[in-house]
Amino acid sequence: MGNVDYGYPSANDNQGGHAHHHRVAVPPPQPFIKSFKNSLKETFFPDDPLRQFKNQSPCRKVVLGLQYFLPILEWAPRYTLQFFKADLISGITIASLAIPQGISYAKLANLPPILGLYSSFIPPLVYAMMGSSRDLAVGTVAVASLLTASMLGQEVSATENPTLYLHLAFTATLFAGLLQASLGLLRLGFIVDFLSHATIVGFMAGAATVVILQQLKGVLGLEHFTHSTDIISVLRSVFSQTHEWRWESGVLGVGFLFFLLITRYFSKRRPKFFWISAMAPLTSVILGSVLVYLTHAEKHGVQVIGNLKKGLNPPSFGDLVFTSPYMITAVKTGMITGIIALAEGIAVGRSFAMFKHYHIDGNKEMVAIGTMNIVGSCFSCYLTTGPFSRSAVNFNAGCKTAMSNVVMAIAVMLTLLFLTPLFHYTPLVVLSAIIIAAMLGLIDYEAAIHLWQVDKFDFVVCMGAYVGVVFGSVEVGLVLAVAISVLRLLLFVARPKTVVLGNLPNSTHYRNVEQYQNTSNVPGVLILEIDAPIYFANSSYLRERISRWIDEEEDKLKSSGETSLQYVILDMSAVGNIDTSGITMFEEVLKTTDRRGLKLVLANPGAEVMKKLNKAKFLEKIGQEWIYLTVGEAVEACNFKLHTCKPDSTKEESQPWNNV
Amino acid sequence: MGNVDYGYPSANDNQGGHAHHHRVAVPPPQPFIKSFKNSLKETFFPDDPLRQFKNQSPCRKVVLGLQYFLPILEWAPRYTLQFFKADLISGITIASLAIPQGISYAKLANLPPILGLYSSFIPPLVYAMMGSSRDLAVGTVAVASLLTASMLGQEVSATENPTLYLHLAFTATLFAGLLQASLGLLRLGFIVDFLSHATIVGFMAGAATVVILQQLKGVLGLEHFTHSTDIISVLRSVFSQTHEWRWESGVLGVGFLFFLLITRYFSKRRPKFFWISAMAPLTSVILGSVLVYLTHAEKHGVQVIGNLKKGLNPPSFGDLVFTSPYMITAVKTGMITGIIALAEGIAVGRSFAMFKHYHIDGNKEMVAIGTMNIVGSCFSCYLTTGPFSRSAVNFNAGCKTAMSNVVMAIAVMLTLLFLTPLFHYTPLVVLSAIIIAAMLGLIDYEAAIHLWQVDKFDFVVCMGAYVGVVFGSVEVGLVLAVAISVLRLLLFVARPKTVVLGNLPNSTHYRNVEQYQNTSNVPGVLILEIDAPIYFANSSYLRERISRWIDEEEDKLKSSGETSLQYVILDMSAVGNIDTSGITMFEEVLKTTDRRGLKLVLANPGAEVMKKLNKAKFLEKIGQEWIYLTVGEAVEACNFKLHTCKPDSTKEESQPWNNV
Repeated sequence: MGNVDYGYPSANDNQGGHAHHHRVAVPPPQPFIKSFKNSLKETFFPDDPLRQFKNQSPCRKVVLGLQYFLPILEWAPRYTLQFFKADLISGITIASLAIPQGISYAKLANLPPILGLYSSFIPPLVYAMMGSSRDLAVGTVAVASLLTASMLGQEVSATENPTLYLHLAFTATLFAGLLQASLGLLRLGFIVDFLSHATIVGFMAGAATVVILQQLKGVLGLEHFTHSTDIISVLRSVFSQTHEWRWESGVLGVGFLFFLLITRYFSKRRPKFFWISAMAPLTSVILGSVLVYLTHAEKHGVQVIGNLKKGLNPPSFGDLVFTSPYMITAVKTGMITGIIALAEGIAVGRSFAMFKHYHIDGNKEMVAIGTMNIVGSCFSCYLTTGPFSRSAVNFNAGCKTAMSNVVMAIAVMLTLLFLTPLFHYTPLVVLSAIIIAAMLGLIDYEAAIHLWQVDKFDFVVCMGAYVGVVFGSVEVGLVLAVAISVLRLLLFVARPKTVVLGNLPNSTHYRNVEQYQNTSNVPGVLILEIDAPIYFANSSYLRERISRWIDEEEDKLKSSGETSLQYVILDMSAVGNIDTSGITMFEEVLKTTDRRGLKLVLANPGAEVMKKLNKAKFLEKIGQEWIYLTVGEAVEACNFKLHTCKPDSTKEESQPWNNV
Repeated sequence: MGNVDYGYPSANDNQGGHAHHHRVAVPPPQPFIKSFKNSLKETFFPDDPLRQFKNQSPCRKVVLGLQYFLPILEWAPRYTLQFFKADLISGITIASLAIPQGISYAKLANLPPILGLYSSFIPPLVYAMMGSSRDLAVGTVAVASLLTASMLGQEVSATENPTLYLHLAFTATLFAGLLQASLGLLRLGFIVDFLSHATIVGFMAGAATVVILQQLKGVLGLEHFTHSTDIISVLRSVFSQTHEWRWESGVLGVGFLFFLLITRYFSKRRPKFFWISAMAPLTSVILGSVLVYLTHAEKHGVQVIGNLKKGLNPPSFGDLVFTSPYMITAVKTGMITGIIALAEGIAVGRSFAMFKHYHIDGNKEMVAIGTMNIVGSCFSCYLTTGPFSRSAVNFNAGCKTAMSNVVMAIAVMLTLLFLTPLFHYTPLVVLSAIIIAAMLGLIDYEAAIHLWQVDKFDFVVCMGAYVGVVFGSVEVGLVLAVAISVLRLLLFVARPKTVVLGNLPNSTHYRNVEQYQNTSNVPGVLILEIDAPIYFANSSYLRERISRWIDEEEDKLKSSGETSLQYVILDMSAVGNIDTSGITMFEEVLKTTDRRGLKLVLANPGAEVMKKLNKAKFLEKIGQEWIYLTVGEAVEACNFKLHTCKPDSTKEESQPWNNV
C-alpha cells in the first residue's frame, strides 16, 4: 500500500483558490457477487476461522481440522505432569461441589437425585475432548433445572407420571443439544449476543430469587407446594399452610445456610483459602447425613434423599419420546433451556478466557456444548452447561486444562460405583441450603446499580428481566428483556439524534454545540449532523426533524434580526448506510429547501451512502459541487458565496435544480 | 453567536508544537428527568405540534385547538367561488369513478354492491371536516376489500350466512377505525413508517396480482371459485373447469378492459385529457348496461348486478357484533386491514402534499381516517381510506380543497336516492374489467427495477412481499416483508462496518481507504472507523473484528518488513451511542491491546459516548490524554511519540494502564 503518488490536480478548484480540496469519492463499483460474498462472510465468519488453514499442506490441513473440532488433540501432546497436578487438585475440588449440587439441582428439576450424578459423569468427558475453554467446569445449573421443571410440569406431572416425565426430560436435553450444536455449525452464534449483559444480570437475579423461593418448601419441610414459580403464588402457598411448617427442618436449614455463607465470606476475604468454601457443601452434606443418622431426625419431619441406585449411567436412547403430543413440549423446553444454558456457558467461558488471555471461538463452543448434551441425553443425563459458580471454583483451584473435568468425572464415577448408599440419610434441607447459598451469589445488585449509573435504558432492560421472571415466569422475563433490548435498537434507528454543529474556536472543526460549550455558529448557515443510518424506519422522522430545525433557526434569526438563513449543511459522517426510503427523503428535503430559498449541502458522506446516492442519481440532482469532504470546507465555500454572490436575489432563476 | 471573525489562522499547523488542540468534551450533566422528557418528546412529538400554541391568548388557543382537529374551520373562511368551481369539477369527476369502483370493490369484499355506494357517501363528508389533505379522495380500496373477504371468509361464509358476514364487516371497520384513531391520538404514527417504500411496492404489486387473478371468475363467468387467494389455488380452480368458461362474458370483459387501457394510455400521453380516462369506467358501466339490456345477455351467461335498493345509508350501529367467537375475527381483520388502509392513505396524502408544497401531520390524518371509519361503521359503510388512483384523478382534475369530497358525496347521494335502478343490468364482467384496469396501474415494475439498481436489500424486501402475497396470502406477504426489513435494521446494528482509514494526500484528513483510492497509510498506526452504535448486539462481533484487523495488519507489516504496529486509533465519529455491553467490549479491547504492546487511541467520540465512558470510568482507564478531537490530531500525537519516545523498549513499564 501506500507509496503511489495520487496527487491529482486540486480536484475542485472552484470559486477562487482554496486549493487542496478533495472531492468526495464514489467508491469504485464492485461486482454484486463479490460484495454479497463479503457481507455473507462478515455476517457468518467474522472471526475468519479458516485463516489458519491457508497455505498449509493437505495433510496438515487434516490435522488442523481434527484439532479444530477436538481441541484435546492440540493440547494433549503438550500436557505435562505439572499441569496434571494442578488439574488433579482442581478436579477433586469441583467434584466435591458437583456431587451435592448435582443432587440438589436434580431435585429442583423434579428428577430423581441420581440424575445429578449421572450428568456430572458423561458430559464432562465429552466436553474435555471438544471444548476449547480451559476453565469451564461442566455440570447442571439451577436456572435450566427450574425451567425444565416448570415447562415440563405444565404437561406432565412429575409425581403422577414420573417415567414419562423423565423420558421427556431426556428428550428435551436431546433437542437442546441439537439446537446448540446446529447454532454452532450454522455459525449463528451471534443469536446469543442478543442476550445483552443487562438482560443476563436481571435474568440471573430473577431466576435466583425464584429458585430461592422454591427452596422454602425444603427449608420449611412442606409436603404440598405450588407448581407456579411466581413470587405471589409461592408466598401464598407458603403462608396458607403455616401450621405445616416444621421447626426441625427450619433450624437445620438456617444453620447450614449460615455455615455456607460464613465459609464463603471467609474465602472471599482470603482467596488462598478458596477450598474452604469449595469443600463446604460436601462437608454440610456429610455433617447433615451423620446428624440425621444419629438423631433419627427422618422420623421427625426432616425429609431425606433415600435410596440412590448404585452403578453407572444406564443408556437412555430407547427412552426418547418422539410422539405427539408430548414431543412438542419437549422441543419447546429444549429450545428455551438450551438457549439459556448456552448463553451461560459461553459467557462463563469467555470471561475466564479473558482473564487468562486466551481466545474462545463461540461457535466451536456451541458445537461442544451441544454434542455433550446430545450424548448425555442418550446416557440418562439432563441438560448440562458450564455453571458460573463451579467454573469459578475450578479457576481458583488453579486448573490448567479441561483435564480437571476428567478428574471430576472419575471422582463422580467412583461415587456412583461405591458411595451412593452414603447419601441415604442426607437431609433435603441441606440441599436447599446449598442451593440458596449458590443462588445468593447470582444476585448481583452492584451490577444493577452500575447499570443505573451508566445507562438508564440498560437498567430498564435488567429490571424488566428481573420483574418478568419474579412476577411472571422465567420465559416471560426472558421475552420481556429481549423485547425491550430489541426495541431499543429499533428506537435508535427510528429516532436518530440530529444535532446542531458549531465552530470550535481557532479551528476548522465543527462539533456538537451541546457537547462543546465554546462553539460559535456561522451566520446564515445551519449545520446538522445525523447520527444514524437513514432507513425507512426513520426517513419520515428525519424529514420532519430537519424542517423543524430549519424553522427554529429561522425563527431565532428573525427575532434577533441577524442575517437570514441561506445554507443547510448536513454532516453525513455518522450515516453508515441509506436505503431507498432514505434517498426519497433526501429528494424531498432538497425540494423543500429549494422552495424556501435555501441551499442544501452535504458533508463527508461515506462509501455506502455515496454509492447509493450515485446510483439513484441524487448526486446529479443536488450537484456534485455541493458535496464536500468536511464541514469546514463546506462552510468555507458557503461563506465565500455568501459574501460575493448574494444568492438572495438571483437564487430563484439561476439554480439548475429548480426544474427537478 | 454571531459576528465572530472567521478569518482563522490556518488551524492545523501540525508536526511540532501542536497548539490549539481541543480536548474532547464530556457534555455537561443533565438531570435525568430532563433528558428523559427530551427523549420522550423526540419519540412522540418530533413535529412539535404544540409550537403554534405558544404565546397565544387563551381564546386564540381554543380556536387553534378546534382548527387542529377540524381543519375545515381553518380553510372554510378563506374559501372562494374560484376554489368551488375547481372543486365542483374534480368532485364530479371522482364521483363518476367512485360509483363503478365502489360497486366493484364491494363485490370483491363479498359484500352487497350497494355498500360501495354507501361507503362513498358518509366517510368523505367526515374526512372533509377533519382531514388535512387537500387532494385525498376518500373511498374503498381493492386490497383492503380483498383482505376483508379472505379474512372474514375463513370464519363465516358470505353466501351461506350473508347477514352475519355483513355485520362482521361493519364490526371490523369499527375496530379498524378505533385502531387508526388511537394510533394517531397516542402519537404512534411512526408504526406506519415500518412499512418501507420497498415493502409497499412489493405488497401493492402482489395484492394487485391477486386481485386480478380473482377477477378471472367474473371475466370467465364462472359460478364456482376457490376461496383461497394464492396463485396456485386460483389457477387450479380456473383450469379445472374449462368447460364452464363463458365466451360471451370473456369477450365483453376483454373488450372493456381494452377500452379502459386505451383511454388511460391516451390520457397519460396528453394530461389535459385526464377526464377521458376518469370518465371511462362510468362510460363502460353505462355502455355495458345498455348492451345487456338490449341483447338480454343476462340470459346467456353474463351475470348482472341485479336489484340495488334505493335510499340512503341505513344506520348499522345496532348490527355491530361484540360477542365471541366472531368478535375476535372481526378485531383481527380490523387491525390488519386498518393498518394497511392507513399506510395507503397516509402515503397518498403525503405524496400529493409534497407536490403542492403543503404539510400533512401524519398523526392528525390518522385521527381523521379513523374517525371516518368509526362513523362509517355505524352507517352501513365498510373500510375506506384514500385510494391512490382516485386521489390522482382528483389531483389531475384540479381540486383545491377537501370540498371535492363533499361534491362527490352529494353526487353519490343523488345516485343512491334516484339512480340505483339504472345499475340493474350492469354486467359483473364490466366491474371486473374496471378492477383489472385499476390494478394494472399498481404493478410498478419500474420501481422494482430501481430498487434492484440502488439497493439490493430493498429489492429482496420488495420481492419478499410480492412472493409472499402471491404464493402465500396477503398477511404472509406483509409479515415477511416487515420481518425482512426489521432484520435488516438488526443486521446493520449486529454487523456494523469497520473500515480502515488512510491519509488523504496533502491534508490532515483520514478517510476510508476503499472509498478514496489515493490515501496512504501511516507507518505503525492502524486507524479504524466503526460505523454504528456499539450495543450488546454487536459488541462481541466488534471485539473479534478489531482483533482480526490488528492480526491482519501485523501479518502484513511482518511480511513486508515495515515498522511494527504501535498504535490503534478508533475513529468514533459514527458511533452514535453505546451501552454497558459496548463499554465492557472497550475494556476488553483495551486489555488485549495492552497485552500485545499496542496503544489504544480514541478519536472524536460523541456526546452520548463520552458521557457513558465517563460514568463507567473508562476514561480514567484509557487516560484522557489518549482521546483526541480528530483522527489527524491522534495520528500527529502518535507520530510525535513514535519518533521521540521509542515506546517499544519502555512500553511495558512506563505506561500507567498496565496495572488496570
